[in-house]
Amino acid sequence: MTAPLHESRSAGSGRALPDTQQGMRRRNLARVMHAVSAEGSLSRAAIASRIGLTRASVSTLVEELIRTGLLEELGPERPGRVGRPGSALAVSGHGPAGIGAEVGVGHLAVCAVDLRGEIRARAVRRRSNRGRPAGPVMRELATLVRRVVTEAEREGLWPAGLAVAVPGLVGRDARTVMRAPNLDWTDTDLGPLLPTDIPLTVDNEANFGALAELWLGDDTPGDFLHVSAEIGIGAAIIVGGQLLRGTRGFAGELGHVPVRPDGPPCGCGGRGCLEQFAGEEAVCRAAGLEPGEGLVGLLAQHAEKGDARVRRALRDAGTALGIALTGAVNLLDPESVVLGGALAALSPWLLPSLEAELTDRTAGPACPVSVSRLGSEGPLLGAAHSVVRAVLDDPAVVAGRV
Amino acid sequence: MTAPLHESRSAGSGRALPDTQQGMRRRNLARVMHAVSAEGSLSRAAIASRIGLTRASVSTLVEELIRTGLLEELGPERPGRVGRPGSALAVSGHGPAGIGAEVGVGHLAVCAVDLRGEIRARAVRRRSNRGRPAGPVMRELATLVRRVVTEAEREGLWPAGLAVAVPGLVGRDARTVMRAPNLDWTDTDLGPLLPTDIPLTVDNEANFGALAELWLGDDTPGDFLHVSAEIGIGAAIIVGGQLLRGTRGFAGELGHVPVRPDGPPCGCGGRGCLEQFAGEEAVCRAAGLEPGEGLVGLLAQHAEKGDARVRRALRDAGTALGIALTGAVNLLDPESVVLGGALAALSPWLLPSLEAELTDRTAGPACPVSVSRLGSEGPLLGAAHSVVRAVLDDPAVVAGRV
Repeated sequence: MTAPLHESRSAGSGRALPDTQQGMRRRNLARVMHAVSAEGSLSRAAIASRIGLTRASVSTLVEELIRTGLLEELGPERPGRVGRPGSALAVSGHGPAGIGAEVGVGHLAVCAVDLRGEIRARAVRRRSNRGRPAGPVMRELATLVRRVVTEAEREGLWPAGLAVAVPGLVGRDARTVMRAPNLDWTDTDLGPLLPTDIPLTVDNEANFGALAELWLGDDTPGDFLHVSAEIGIGAAIIVGGQLLRGTRGFAGELGHVPVRPDGPPCGCGGRGCLEQFAGEEAVCRAAGLEPGEGLVGLLAQHAEKGDARVRRALRDAGTALGIALTGAVNLLDPESVVLGGALAALSPWLLPSLEAELTDRTAGPACPVSVSRLGSEGPLLGAAHSVVRAVLDDPAVVAGRV
Repeated sequence: MTAPLHESRSAGSGRALPDTQQGMRRRNLARVMHAVSAEGSLSRAAIASRIGLTRASVSTLVEELIRTGLLEELGPERPGRVGRPGSALAVSGHGPAGIGAEVGVGHLAVCAVDLRGEIRARAVRRRSNRGRPAGPVMRELATLVRRVVTEAEREGLWPAGLAVAVPGLVGRDARTVMRAPNLDWTDTDLGPLLPTDIPLTVDNEANFGALAELWLGDDTPGDFLHVSAEIGIGAAIIVGGQLLRGTRGFAGELGHVPVRPDGPPCGCGGRGCLEQFAGEEAVCRAAGLEPGEGLVGLLAQHAEKGDARVRRALRDAGTALGIALTGAVNLLDPESVVLGGALAALSPWLLPSLEAELTDRTAGPACPVSVSRLGSEGPLLGAAHSVVRAVLDDPAVVAGRV
């Protein structure tokens, strides 16, 4: 049995916990975990000064976290520090792990990440899932999950939650895929289809990609727009370190922002949407290539070799992205735009025209655009880390387990 | 002397207060105030059951709030309720008041709102402020503020804060007008220019208009996009009951979303921005009218009479608004779009084409559009209520004063 994490997930950094003595204790347990997690290792005195509690309160909290296997004692601190040496504490490399999974159009992937953020087990299966029903895909995913969990358990870890990234819109129940056009799934509750007793959450791959960037990126700000593409174009909006989900959970549909309002009709019902100029099909058509698996690599290869038609197609896609992003930047005033997923791999040929649009259409300094270091790994890592963050945000939920 | 409210303002609903016994007491004082404020009057027992604290804890909190003049005892509750009668409590109609002010292109306005949300004093001066330097405008505003405060004091109120709405972009310091094109102000810190000792905050009129809609509108959801226009077109984004401000405080610039990317150049540096199709100047030109004060009334008057050119101009503006809003709705997935300010008055002629674009460009049900009941009163009311909310959100800040 594992403890339910859904409550703590929706609570963010434990802020929505009840404002009682008990709630305060839970929030302070989270503060201790986050402080130690951010620094790698810390003494009780350093924790106390960092989070503004007394040494005595911190000792009580630390004792509980050690007893439940979330923190571990490293022994006396290295000399050379001021004051008498305290014993350094570190986040446990055993105990709870986050299981992340990704349902891609061309692959399935699962990994286990410990509370320190290290990947401890991993499994991938390449196979086209296009048009396959959700049932068999989920059964196959469950096999990979079992393999990864078995491997993690061998190292003293246990699964605190399973988060699945899908290429589609997910309802606010964090389980139902409302529509995933490239898998051809609609209104599919993945809960009953995934035979596992690990607490499950499902989210859009663009959302998990953005969260990965927030948590694992280099100097990522707390306000940014993350744009990614595999076959569709998705974006995720991070505001004040939180994902903006929208009323139905559908926020971030950059692909359906009108770029040329009288342009070609789009599957969404609109006309001239960004996807009609910068989506996979549009770019393929303009580049004279056949759509199919591995297209991003093929585009990059051709562009690298100097294929003028491919380069022009990518340049035009960059222009369309720049127009749509100008609108998004005017609405959201983010600190930066980050290109992730397939866009990261194609950025050398997209960026010049994209940045030119953003600059030309802005009076002041244009919003800076950067390229994600995580690339296509983002969604899987974001999924696994979302479980880890949920444990750090409310350690009391798993504390009862050990 | 008045207590500083800035700290509590930025803290939102007291969530960012320190997590100590003292912080918990402050948050619980806020819960009591909000519970009573939401219901008009409540007994101690009803408060306790509503906020999930013991009757004894609530009594202590209530005692403090009565002593500091924020709550008042109404006497025994009306019979007919279950249980022994408790004394009903109400938010005080004396004590702190929020002073709201608005700098319009054609007027200055100031009002005082008590903690119950009632307007208790008001002053307006009509005069064009276009091109006037900020110094004399602020001195004139200070005179109106003094008049309103004097009137409020006569009724036993005292000013807890002054919030000023301006038609321009305001920096995150909540004092500096970065640019207000229709006043011709740039980088102007209003702090030193406004001779008053009341704690001051300055914000964009669209932001205050949206907050007024959130706090005072009929069944306004917690996630909506508020679109308003006087001369420029502004929007404000409310997510989870909070204003999305953006990194520099510039979020909501719907007027500069590209609608037709190859369209006419815009003052912002872009081309084909929404303002070039739906801003005052563009609509005037298309309608064959001279720009100037009172234009909204004039447009409505002509449209009412059936002037075909004016109606066509408003229809085309509605189409452009619909295209820009389709993009915004795809990005933000709000529960609704609310038209405020001048757009509310012109909505009979804007709405049909606006809604047609939103519907035609959406596969599922289109995002509902409603018209604000507050209209052009929104920014002034939002400003005054922002001070009132700050007191309700952290009563401890003003409690020391009485």
